[in-house]
Amino acid sequence: MNPPPFSPSPALLERAVALAGTPVYLYDEATIIDRCRRVRAMPNAFGLRVAYAMKANSNRAILQLVTGQGLGIDASSLNEVRRARLAGVADQRIMLTTQEVPEGDDREELEQLMAAGLEYNVCSLRQLELLARSATTEQCAISIRVNPGVGTGESRTRNTGDKYSSFGIHLDALPEVVRRARAHRMPIVEVHTHIGSGGAPELWQSNIDRVLTIVEQFFPEATTVNLGGGFRVARMPDESSADITALGRYAERRFSEFSARTGRKLKMAVEPGTYLVANAGVIVSRVLDKKSSGPDGFDFLILDAGMETNTRPLLYGSRHPFSVVARDGRVLSDEFALPSQALLPQVVVGRCCETGDCQTLDEQHTVIPRRMAEPEIGDYVVIGGAGAYCSSMSLTGYNSHRQAPELLVRPDGSLVTIRERQSLAQLVMNERSLPEPA
Amino acid sequence: MNPPPFSPSPALLERAVALAGTPVYLYDEATIIDRCRRVRAMPNAFGLRVAYAMKANSNRAILQLVTGQGLGIDASSLNEVRRARLAGVADQRIMLTTQEVPEGDDREELEQLMAAGLEYNVCSLRQLELLARSATTEQCAISIRVNPGVGTGESRTRNTGDKYSSFGIHLDALPEVVRRARAHRMPIVEVHTHIGSGGAPELWQSNIDRVLTIVEQFFPEATTVNLGGGFRVARMPDESSADITALGRYAERRFSEFSARTGRKLKMAVEPGTYLVANAGVIVSRVLDKKSSGPDGFDFLILDAGMETNTRPLLYGSRHPFSVVARDGRVLSDEFALPSQALLPQVVVGRCCETGDCQTLDEQHTVIPRRMAEPEIGDYVVIGGAGAYCSSMSLTGYNSHRQAPELLVRPDGSLVTIRERQSLAQLVMNERSLPEPA
Repeated sequence: MNPPPFSPSPALLERAVALAGTPVYLYDEATIIDRCRRVRAMPNAFGLRVAYAMKANSNRAILQLVTGQGLGIDASSLNEVRRARLAGVADQRIMLTTQEVPEGDDREELEQLMAAGLEYNVCSLRQLELLARSATTEQCAISIRVNPGVGTGESRTRNTGDKYSSFGIHLDALPEVVRRARAHRMPIVEVHTHIGSGGAPELWQSNIDRVLTIVEQFFPEATTVNLGGGFRVARMPDESSADITALGRYAERRFSEFSARTGRKLKMAVEPGTYLVANAGVIVSRVLDKKSSGPDGFDFLILDAGMETNTRPLLYGSRHPFSVVARDGRVLSDEFALPSQALLPQVVVGRCCETGDCQTLDEQHTVIPRRMAEPEIGDYVVIGGAGAYCSSMSLTGYNSHRQAPELLVRPDGSLVTIRERQSLAQLVMNERSLPEPA
Repeated sequence: MNPPPFSPSPALLERAVALAGTPVYLYDEATIIDRCRRVRAMPNAFGLRVAYAMKANSNRAILQLVTGQGLGIDASSLNEVRRARLAGVADQRIMLTTQEVPEGDDREELEQLMAAGLEYNVCSLRQLELLARSATTEQCAISIRVNPGVGTGESRTRNTGDKYSSFGIHLDALPEVVRRARAHRMPIVEVHTHIGSGGAPELWQSNIDRVLTIVEQFFPEATTVNLGGGFRVARMPDESSADITALGRYAERRFSEFSARTGRKLKMAVEPGTYLVANAGVIVSRVLDKKSSGPDGFDFLILDAGMETNTRPLLYGSRHPFSVVARDGRVLSDEFALPSQALLPQVVVGRCCETGDCQTLDEQHTVIPRRMAEPEIGDYVVIGGAGAYCSSMSLTGYNSHRQAPELLVRPDGSLVTIRERQSLAQLVMNERSLPEPA
């Protein structure tokens, strides 16, 4: 049911390590293309626009790859817009949805971008007012992000649609937004919600109903409904991914009913990040050491990739599958496809001087040993589901560990470096010595 | 009781913002010097060595500052050793305690450093064996990190002394360690424990007893007992810092008793990080926007400093004090000295597209509004207790936000930049474009 994750062959693993050492992020172009196609094939009533939530993985080559598949870019900061442009993405294919309120030079830059076609998703009354002050005709057609009051997420910190969330404009403020936009003669052509990441598919579905009701009540000029991203993605074999075809069918039916009732043919937009890249990436790490905390304790594997390379277990209690590969290429255990019940329970930790530097934690920060083959020191542990929110959301620099490199496997099997390993000189390049006393 | 935290005057705040904009880390040299002196003045029986746990704040100027006060450096990775050397710290003043097992070129570098006087704290049997293979006479006198089986910490992820922790060599393995060290003719001259950060002072105290027992039982040649760091530090006015003078007095008594019983005069070593710098630093941020999530919801302040600048609230549920300062310099509320009970409860969030980007969370990731004055957009919020584990443990680069600059207030009131703001070009400097099809 779940689309198959990228899992490198031992031969590929060996080539990647020969090219870049460990730890290294390794992404698979074919898997990313497959996921792009799956999302673009989502059933829809009157058209579908897909944008990539680039904060999931902001590497330039990844942006080039997904936009090459016909996707646009969902940027969450002006810096992300700049990075997308550095990747060659046209302004008309970028939508900016941000908590920032660009001012000064940033404001000027944003206005130029909007004049060139960037779509600005207004997320607060203040953003609306600032835009209204300077809006030219090209900038007048705007999108509004609505906080629908109900959300969902794989963890508490990833629910972006309820009262604990500051994202978008709360329902209560919508009449005021509509009044002001009308006063400024700014048509609201798109209504956007994003209720959280990795939450229950049923809630994603019921959000469609909620947004359509909001559109009918408040936004007569809207032609696009943007449902954000957040499709649940299984990283572990005992997890289930959202069925995006079923979600699309549901949306198709509800958009059609809406049209039958109102005569309005709304286009649908979605903004996945995790769905497109999470299972297209792995981290290849090496076992540095093994330890035990005694007969009533645990067996530990110390990897060269820890919290500074994948922060998700510590932040969210996220589980990532492990495969254990001997130096000679034998796969000793592989959790990508099947949970490994019969093997040795082990706790996987990194190099940082912190107990939280552990890849096998639950959401309460409890250490949960994982069953896996016992590797030798020097063997590899491949950490799966690591294409999204690993490289882009890492504690790089902690304990002075350097940012790991990123490699991409092309469809022809060739391997290219898409980010070099950070050097120590780069890590400290902005530091200045204490001035000598005068 | 708690030593007073650094809290910048409105005039200093204005100068810092004029120099570097916001968000910015601002450190106070006088406070750091004060804390260095307090630790060096800890009562002790037969001498005290103090090393700075540099992972708390690895900036070159901070390293120069604390070593200028007579402290050594506690490094937790070979890269930290390299950074300390870049700061001009002599090899003899550095001790390396790491989960890494340096191999290849790193191994060779470590051997040279040890020959030049760096002290290596052996943390696993494997580290001992690798060292034994190549040890020269100069390298033979080693330190051993022991996992005493009992620990403490301000949160679950910061207890480094119990069975959930992989740090050091577990008690059960000590006879084997002693046997091997003896076989290799390597005298164990120092015994090290670090049981966690920010935990109960009573446990820190009882650890002294435990270590002395271990030293007596297993390490007849040890001349130094290293108690690690982890002194509890109050960031909020309703928290209590450990009384390090009382801890020192307790240690002095126990070391003296040990001497009376055994004739051995043990030197004491401590390795504080947080204690030295946490309350010497603040983050100066600006209010970008204000929002509400409805009548049953919350009032939100959106700051330009969020999870990418201070990750501690999200990682640990840590509380940091806030002061609210108007653009004209009026202090609207100040939580550094007294909790603000009478003011408006507000939720403080950052710019990232993630509900977890919140500075007012508890350890269960529940949003806990904080009472503070309601600022205007454009006013400043100063986040206190931000000198340790903020800049060094940040999610820099997430949502493509750049690393914030660091400033230091000198004792004469002058302000110097000790790290420049990262540029966007630097953020992406190691990225490579997708190669064009051949």
